[in-house]
Amino acid sequence: MYAVIMAGGKGARFWPRSRNRLPKHLLDICSEKTIIQETVERIIPLTPPEKILIVTGASHARELIGQLPQIPPENILIEPMGRNTAPCIGLAALVVRKRAGNAVMAVLPSDHLIADEENFRHVLAAAADMAARGDHLVTIGIRPTGPETGYGYIEEGKLAARERGEEIFAVKSIREKPDVELAKTFLAKGGFFWNSGMFIWQAATILKEMESSLPDIYAGLLDIDRALDTPAEAKVLADVYGSFRSISIDYGVMEKAKNTLVIPADFGWSDVGSWDALWEVSEKDAQGIAARNREGLVSVNSRNSLVYSPKKLVALVDVEDLIVVETDDALLICKRGASQEVKKVVETLEEEKREEYL
Amino acid sequence: MYAVIMAGGKGARFWPRSRNRLPKHLLDICSEKTIIQETVERIIPLTPPEKILIVTGASHARELIGQLPQIPPENILIEPMGRNTAPCIGLAALVVRKRAGNAVMAVLPSDHLIADEENFRHVLAAAADMAARGDHLVTIGIRPTGPETGYGYIEEGKLAARERGEEIFAVKSIREKPDVELAKTFLAKGGFFWNSGMFIWQAATILKEMESSLPDIYAGLLDIDRALDTPAEAKVLADVYGSFRSISIDYGVMEKAKNTLVIPADFGWSDVGSWDALWEVSEKDAQGIAARNREGLVSVNSRNSLVYSPKKLVALVDVEDLIVVETDDALLICKRGASQEVKKVVETLEEEKREEYL
Repeated sequence: MYAVIMAGGKGARFWPRSRNRLPKHLLDICSEKTIIQETVERIIPLTPPEKILIVTGASHARELIGQLPQIPPENILIEPMGRNTAPCIGLAALVVRKRAGNAVMAVLPSDHLIADEENFRHVLAAAADMAARGDHLVTIGIRPTGPETGYGYIEEGKLAARERGEEIFAVKSIREKPDVELAKTFLAKGGFFWNSGMFIWQAATILKEMESSLPDIYAGLLDIDRALDTPAEAKVLADVYGSFRSISIDYGVMEKAKNTLVIPADFGWSDVGSWDALWEVSEKDAQGIAARNREGLVSVNSRNSLVYSPKKLVALVDVEDLIVVETDDALLICKRGASQEVKKVVETLEEEKREEYL
Repeated sequence: MYAVIMAGGKGARFWPRSRNRLPKHLLDICSEKTIIQETVERIIPLTPPEKILIVTGASHARELIGQLPQIPPENILIEPMGRNTAPCIGLAALVVRKRAGNAVMAVLPSDHLIADEENFRHVLAAAADMAARGDHLVTIGIRPTGPETGYGYIEEGKLAARERGEEIFAVKSIREKPDVELAKTFLAKGGFFWNSGMFIWQAATILKEMESSLPDIYAGLLDIDRALDTPAEAKVLADVYGSFRSISIDYGVMEKAKNTLVIPADFGWSDVGSWDALWEVSEKDAQGIAARNREGLVSVNSRNSLVYSPKKLVALVDVEDLIVVETDDALLICKRGASQEVKKVVETLEEEKREEYL
């Protein structure tokens, strides 16, 4: 099995730590390692580094290569511009097919958190077995723990198979991010799972699906395929990507396909999409305070906050529900629950052309 | 008239800006100038630098001298240790008497804020005129704007005189810091003023009062008086101060004296005793945010906060009633209204012997 890690994210939601030059997956937000280092290390027991492909943008390639010395340089695929997940996955499928024929490939986001890695690998191996057996588009569905509105949902249909003890269901429907009322009905009804954005299939299968569902993208991919490993590669990539529309694999392929399957899973998954989400998954003290640098914190009558300030002593006095993030040039103080609004700070800085903070 | 500025304060309440080596009056908390620079510049139109004495502790003398190049070095009186205001004022009275005979001296705290400086000087000149006319202990009482429990109160008696249009009253009583109920009755009753800690009298008058009310202190002062400007001065000062009890001029003299007078005044006075008090007196934007470095602030849906971070961009998102103070090595986030609790941070740091932050 090949693993394809999609590392094209931007992540303004982790400002002031995330910047244009340093998106979320390149940050050590969840531990001492960066998120992409964790993502790669998590998959290595299942897939050796020479079978791990990473798709990234040119502006982050240098930093990414530096963080992942174990990945062969030819496995870093550089997109000339971001066009959402469908072109990214198509490009990776071409490379897999070229190097290994019709291998199974697992497509994985670069910036998610997974607590139970062993369970994750077990589910992934089951999905790979299923994908190897036929023209299936296998997804991993996360058992929801609440009516989240930040994720898409996958509705299970009939039980289709079992692999390594995991149940695999036909997909009845794929739903966009719901409002909270609809999310509640999903939970009440049961059989709905969060769309983890992880896909497992044969390279030939996804290319065939793109041929029928996204013929324009597929045609461009064929142009790229002919140019791969030739002197024209960079120019063709740039031209073709310039012509691509931006479209996700969910919307472009998965929602139309008939041969989709879902493996329900529960391995402590979070997309850690915001400072609030990070607080939720972080280790906290008895007062609900999450702080990487514990010795650097003096807390007086304070609760339920996230503190990141690696170099300074931080004193909290009589505060609660705060997110405090300090970097060398900026300081964020945000109410917990409002961290989606951090993007407004970034927008303001963009309007004011304060590039040094972006 | 001589001016005696008492600069012995510590000011842990302005942590993390105030430190053992840098108490409140040596900080630029209210403006680009330090508080003692403002205090000195405010008095200079009334009293030339050669008639301004500053009493300070040895550990802050060097910094203080550096901040006040206009004050002659021989006008910096260094106490070997702090013994509250009575010994401090006694020492200054000796020096005034030695240099200028029985001059009037105005005793002024070093760390207060005064918005209307012209009015302040007018009141002070009136008080000096009154003091010059006899054995009076003149104080300045601040018209209260609310039932503050952080100040002592002075109750006016009969109208005693007018100087330069200012009414001067006999003092009926001097009250320690009241609880809020008592403070409310003071305000309802009227004729009560905040004790500003400013005193105006002849040097001979206060020494005579100390002789009768504080004979032990007075005896020590006589020893010091004999040693002033001799090679024994430093040793005698250290010995005598070591023998002094710690006692305030209010408790030791003013509360017992019969010849006390008060001039009610209203010149935008604040003792700026805490971060909360600083927010109160600071210039604020339409959202109630006080920030020295306006360009360095991005505020999203945030209100009624104080931000001090001279070097970094600060983003506030959906927060209110916060005090945010950043220094090179520490960061304070405190609920507005709770800044008295900042001393608990300092106490914790003392217990943990983290001297670098004290």
